[in-house]
Amino acid sequence: MATVSADPAQLFERHRTTLEDAVAAVHGRGFHSAYPESPSPKVYGPDAAAEGEAAFTALLGADFPIDQPGGDERIVTERSPYGIPLGVGYPHADADTLLAASRAAAPSWRAAGPEGWAGVCLEILHRLNQRSFTIAHAVQHTTGQAFVMAFQAGGPHAQDRGLEAVAYAYDLTTRYARTVRWEKPQRRGGAQVLDKRFHVVPRGTGLVIGCGTFPTWNAYPGLFASLATGNPVVVKPHPRAVLPLAITVAVAREVLAEAGLEPDTVLLAAERPDERLAARLATRPEVRIIDFTGSTEFGNWLEANARQAFVCTEKAGVNTVVVDSTDAYRGMLGNLASSLSLYSGQMCTTPQNILVPRGGIATDEGHKSAAEVAADLGAAVRDLLADPARAVALLGAISGDAVLDRVAAAADLGETVLPSSEVVHPEYADAVVRTPLIVSVPADRRDVYGREHFGPIAFVVQTADTGESLRLLHATTTERGALTAAVYSTDPAVLTAAEETAVDAGVNLSVNLTGSILVNQSAAFSDYHGTGANPAATSSLTDPAFITPRFRLTQSRHPA
Amino acid sequence: MATVSADPAQLFERHRTTLEDAVAAVHGRGFHSAYPESPSPKVYGPDAAAEGEAAFTALLGADFPIDQPGGDERIVTERSPYGIPLGVGYPHADADTLLAASRAAAPSWRAAGPEGWAGVCLEILHRLNQRSFTIAHAVQHTTGQAFVMAFQAGGPHAQDRGLEAVAYAYDLTTRYARTVRWEKPQRRGGAQVLDKRFHVVPRGTGLVIGCGTFPTWNAYPGLFASLATGNPVVVKPHPRAVLPLAITVAVAREVLAEAGLEPDTVLLAAERPDERLAARLATRPEVRIIDFTGSTEFGNWLEANARQAFVCTEKAGVNTVVVDSTDAYRGMLGNLASSLSLYSGQMCTTPQNILVPRGGIATDEGHKSAAEVAADLGAAVRDLLADPARAVALLGAISGDAVLDRVAAAADLGETVLPSSEVVHPEYADAVVRTPLIVSVPADRRDVYGREHFGPIAFVVQTADTGESLRLLHATTTERGALTAAVYSTDPAVLTAAEETAVDAGVNLSVNLTGSILVNQSAAFSDYHGTGANPAATSSLTDPAFITPRFRLTQSRHPA
Repeated sequence: MATVSADPAQLFERHRTTLEDAVAAVHGRGFHSAYPESPSPKVYGPDAAAEGEAAFTALLGADFPIDQPGGDERIVTERSPYGIPLGVGYPHADADTLLAASRAAAPSWRAAGPEGWAGVCLEILHRLNQRSFTIAHAVQHTTGQAFVMAFQAGGPHAQDRGLEAVAYAYDLTTRYARTVRWEKPQRRGGAQVLDKRFHVVPRGTGLVIGCGTFPTWNAYPGLFASLATGNPVVVKPHPRAVLPLAITVAVAREVLAEAGLEPDTVLLAAERPDERLAARLATRPEVRIIDFTGSTEFGNWLEANARQAFVCTEKAGVNTVVVDSTDAYRGMLGNLASSLSLYSGQMCTTPQNILVPRGGIATDEGHKSAAEVAADLGAAVRDLLADPARAVALLGAISGDAVLDRVAAAADLGETVLPSSEVVHPEYADAVVRTPLIVSVPADRRDVYGREHFGPIAFVVQTADTGESLRLLHATTTERGALTAAVYSTDPAVLTAAEETAVDAGVNLSVNLTGSILVNQSAAFSDYHGTGANPAATSSLTDPAFITPRFRLTQSRHPA
Repeated sequence: MATVSADPAQLFERHRTTLEDAVAAVHGRGFHSAYPESPSPKVYGPDAAAEGEAAFTALLGADFPIDQPGGDERIVTERSPYGIPLGVGYPHADADTLLAASRAAAPSWRAAGPEGWAGVCLEILHRLNQRSFTIAHAVQHTTGQAFVMAFQAGGPHAQDRGLEAVAYAYDLTTRYARTVRWEKPQRRGGAQVLDKRFHVVPRGTGLVIGCGTFPTWNAYPGLFASLATGNPVVVKPHPRAVLPLAITVAVAREVLAEAGLEPDTVLLAAERPDERLAARLATRPEVRIIDFTGSTEFGNWLEANARQAFVCTEKAGVNTVVVDSTDAYRGMLGNLASSLSLYSGQMCTTPQNILVPRGGIATDEGHKSAAEVAADLGAAVRDLLADPARAVALLGAISGDAVLDRVAAAADLGETVLPSSEVVHPEYADAVVRTPLIVSVPADRRDVYGREHFGPIAFVVQTADTGESLRLLHATTTERGALTAAVYSTDPAVLTAAEETAVDAGVNLSVNLTGSILVNQSAAFSDYHGTGANPAATSSLTDPAFITPRFRLTQSRHPA
């Protein structure tokens, strides 16, 4: 074990201001960020980009440098959607080995207490922030995200989400008195007096099951929520996106060791293809918390079978945009075109269904028929992506063949408004890049648009009127789930009805976005990602219900 | 519907100070009570006792006055352990009728918002407090509790537990900003600006399944936690203890109606014998929250089958006292004697296993062998209960025949230290009153003491030493659950080890209680009842994890 360079209490003091500002932010819900999102040299220093890329390159074609329990077997499961060879080998360990190590580490981590947990977590986040460029390349070349997005979403935005979870955890574990002298007046004689001590008791090992598209952004809330409430964590990355989380685990273990704690508090669980290690771990009695992002099928399986655990799942959803009217037609089209194009629609927050009254809509450019709206949206996407260099910066690359298959299949599901086309990547000749497909279908084709088509696939759905659009928003959200919803209207009554519909269906609503903010984007400390109130997710990133089941409170009391 | 005499906002203002004091108390955890526990005329007024008793008597042998959806069928399921006729008829309604009414009431209750929920809940609690004498008689004659205990535990203490739940709910739903202007600075140009609104979205109908021994105390936390987070509630009392909760529901409906809200926000679900109405309701998709106190068998069934709901269960447990040494031998014996006698051991918090090293213990009266400790405890119980009038004020009456059967069976499980004897109740000739049975067994009889024997049954278990006692405390708590644990020792190292053992096993610990405070008792706003960290209960009355899954947060955002 490394020399103790800063114990947990010192780390807490080092990062106290960052923590306190974050706690204030989750309550105030205004704009807040602790980790700058710009990859500019003015922010991260003149050498950060080159050094980060060099560090990434040094990891390729080699065994990943991490020392944790397990045998010598190394597994390689990643390929870059941009076509460069990766070939990173990760150590394999079986469930018994991982959980024995996690259990052995638990007491020392539990003993660190709320301040220690927060201090260590914030030091981990700080060092992850310093490695943002390396992580950005790792995210880009595992997920297919374009570089700047990989930097932002995989680096600072994910770190902010992690900090947000730590802030909630610290707030909810420390805002109840930890000791008290309890004095109960008696009608006769002196008071009854007891001294009481209260303990935060962590629930048990957390299992984080990462996804292939946002390996850090979707994993950090669960990882840091469990750690910051005193639980050890086993991180099981998606086999296609191991590297960003392997770096994360390595950084966490480094900080733990330097703080004199057990590095096995955080463990990497890389899996062989078809090993089903996640399912194996998830049903073990030692695993008491599970955070999962991925398919509805496996999410539902976890909810049904991992009965011993507090299970947080984020699964598939069908995101809807209700178009009623607008006083900024070009802005609306441009905003929607960007939403559909960003990371080729491979976001759980990308709109899929754009509901337009078949009689058309009122706009600042006059009345537009439903067909015109569809065609104008298609044109807006085409214009946005006309320049290949600009297109690939938005689109990134397609993460896997399953997405291409879905695009091919979706073209036959209705009338094509805009076909998906190939884009040649100016930098990576082997990258698979596709523009969004837009298909027009009538409202009675819920068999088509009523389920998720993950990828660059959108449906313009012609409805009878906005009333039907809102009913469909409600129906698809409550039946299939949704992570986002949006409405465009100039009519206050429609906006009120849309908000009531969204509240009732349990989905977050974006209203009249016509500028640079997209419905896909959610900001840490202010926007909730998911609600737990519809089938797309059992929890929200982050609300108090995401945190409180991860720990218990116990007490002792004795006469003073 | 009655005239609106005070709307929810007015009720909130009326009770704001009570609420704010309660919120401060759950954070500070010092002594706090809003509802006086003394039934003295100086506190509740000279006529309160007589009026309360008259109101109770007026309810007997008649249809209970409550107007809610359902047919004309009335059901009578209660008998008094004191032998007086009850004969109260409750309206029966089937699950469809109840849940349709609950669903219809939900929107108006949801619309009342956090302040409205708190205001209405506090008015309900205020009126319940005014009916404490009536409720005391109802609790006494359904559970067998002695009158003063029925008054305190069934009245003010239960009301304080309800208020505590409201305080948590109000605090956790209102301490995050409800609107914000979010302004994100841009590196070029003006800030991105969004106005955001946040909504508390109630989870859905709550089902409270009451128990036969503490019908109000165990039901109020769940009832008020669900109500104060915006959910309608169906209250299903234990068939032997309907009246206290029928009064509660009637009071809630009266307050709701007067506030201009739907009285069906709170509904009574009285059940026919063997109807299994609780199971029928619990698995309905409309039921989204369940609070249950009762058998391990049904609690486990609910956890396994009511998958659509947030399920809080309090089940059986095995409570342990570790006796290592004491500097107040008489105080310890007297305190334990009271703990075993209170309500004839029919409390989920009563100690069952008293672990004594077989080599004996050091005391302020010299060394005492294990046999002496057992015999002295038996004598202390006998002395405490020597006077019948005093005995019945402590013991109350036996709540049902199953308890008597267990006492009879337990006498053969080891060496009898103190037999259970009958006490003739000076006031109620037909009351069934029994003193506690104490049986001595060696540590290797975990088949005997390792499971719950609910009722006036205690085991003195002879262990090898205090180390074995602590291991047994840990083992029985983690295997069978426990709501309380206690230790007596003069050795700081033993006390530290006991506290670590209790934290690790997830049970609350009382240390060296030798005065008037009993391990059985837990005080609202300060003591946690249950932890959720051992098999006796999935939750704690009350901690944040008991509250937060009852609501979700959603948002909308639009350009400023």
